Amino acid sequence: MTVFTCNPLPHLNATLITFEIEGGVIEVEEAFALDFPTLPLNQGVILSGRGPIWLFARLVHHYHPALWVAVHDPRLGYIVVQSHSKERREGEVIASSL
Amino acid sequence: MTVFTCNPLPHLNATLITFEIEGGVIEVEEAFALDFPTLPLNQGVILSGRGPIWLFARLVHHYHPALWVAVHDPRLGYIVVQSHSKERREGEVIASSL
Repeated sequence: MTVFTCNPLPHLNATLITFEIEGGVIEVEEAFALDFPTLPLNQGVILSGRGPIWLFARLVHHYHPALWVAVHDPRLGYIVVQSHSKERREGEVIASSL
Repeated sequence: MTVFTCNPLPHLNATLITFEIEGGVIEVEEAFALDFPTLPLNQGVILSGRGPIWLFARLVHHYHPALWVAVHDPRLGYIVVQSHSKERREGEVIASSL
């Protein structure tokens, strides 16, 4: 099972979604059948969790309509990978302590 | 430095792009300044390499106009993560030995 936790981050005008894969392993079929949480798309979406590259690829694609999408790199912070906003540019690193 | 190698896979109607990050580490700034190879987009694009999640996210987004996009999971094969084609569905696993 995969659990999604959504935390609004009003200071960043974003929602942080953290996913946790129970047991650490997910099958492709299960990953592509998951329903992702419905989020406000007029702000940013930040994705965090440990999972296969293709699950991240699916998540980033799914939330593409959001104002911007970032992924959490525990070493660096939140890396903006897509943006439809002048407020955030692709390649920007947002400190995750913010 | 990051090196991209492109291999046409005519039997899959796709191009395989393999990237290699010299030394295994890439800075965010460098990753977002990379020019990606120009590829035929009327077929599939398969991404392969070892790199951070945000580089994959950028690559998948960049090649989104392609007929379909897959990522290489060495354990499983090529996982289709986006498709504009009836020939390939998202979540499909293509054997990489093909």
